Amino acid sequence: MSENIDQLTELLRKLESVNSDVQGSSIVSVQGLPICSALARDVNDCIVSAMSAAIQSVSERAVEELARGALTRILIEGEDGTIILSKAGNNAILCVLAGKEAKLGMVFLNIKSVAIKIAELLD
Amino acid sequence: MSENIDQLTELLRKLESVNSDVQGSSIVSVQGLPICSALARDVNDCIVSAMSAAIQSVSERAVEELARGALTRILIEGEDGTIILSKAGNNAILCVLAGKEAKLGMVFLNIKSVAIKIAELLD
Repeated sequence: MSENIDQLTELLRKLESVNSDVQGSSIVSVQGLPICSALARDVNDCIVSAMSAAIQSVSERAVEELARGALTRILIEGEDGTIILSKAGNNAILCVLAGKEAKLGMVFLNIKSVAIKIAELLD
Repeated sequence: MSENIDQLTELLRKLESVNSDVQGSSIVSVQGLPICSALARDVNDCIVSAMSAAIQSVSERAVEELARGALTRILIEGEDGTIILSKAGNNAILCVLAGKEAKLGMVFLNIKSVAIKIAELLD
């Protein structure tokens, strides 16, 4: 498992290095527990994990109730940037922080490719 | 208040008529109670209201924790369309359903103008 964590951390670091619009990222379990993180030091990983899983879970129910098909992605837009939540396989959620003027199309592509690799490691 | 509800319902109807990408909309209180709705008949307004307010509230906390500035908008993307949540003044949340291939830039502009009018009526 420790080897897996190293590989996951490496994936998050690569995500940040290939796209300068990515300002941080984190992998959390669907139960809301931290798996691994590349977020700023002053961020509370436990709170972020719990919130990501809560938003993901309520959103899954919302798209079902409102007939929007299966949930693909959640964007939480703030004045200074965006939080992007995407499912990464059956067990994990990838949480990515993008800057204010981020080119989101490219960020989405990068996220998609990382999410597939996370799924391979964790499913 | 009943007059207000009529005006709010009219705003939602107009939103749908000016932009064919809008497939439904609803105004809910920040406490999670329905205010008025132009959603499909088989949708449970109470569930949608509670979920919208829950997602909005956790997201407000998330953007704060992750230093993204004040929350502006939430997009919940499904395979068949998107749910857009926006604050409408201090007391209400505007929930809008957009189709799969919606031109979201235009939808956002329409939402912004309606949200201002809702705030004028409810704040």
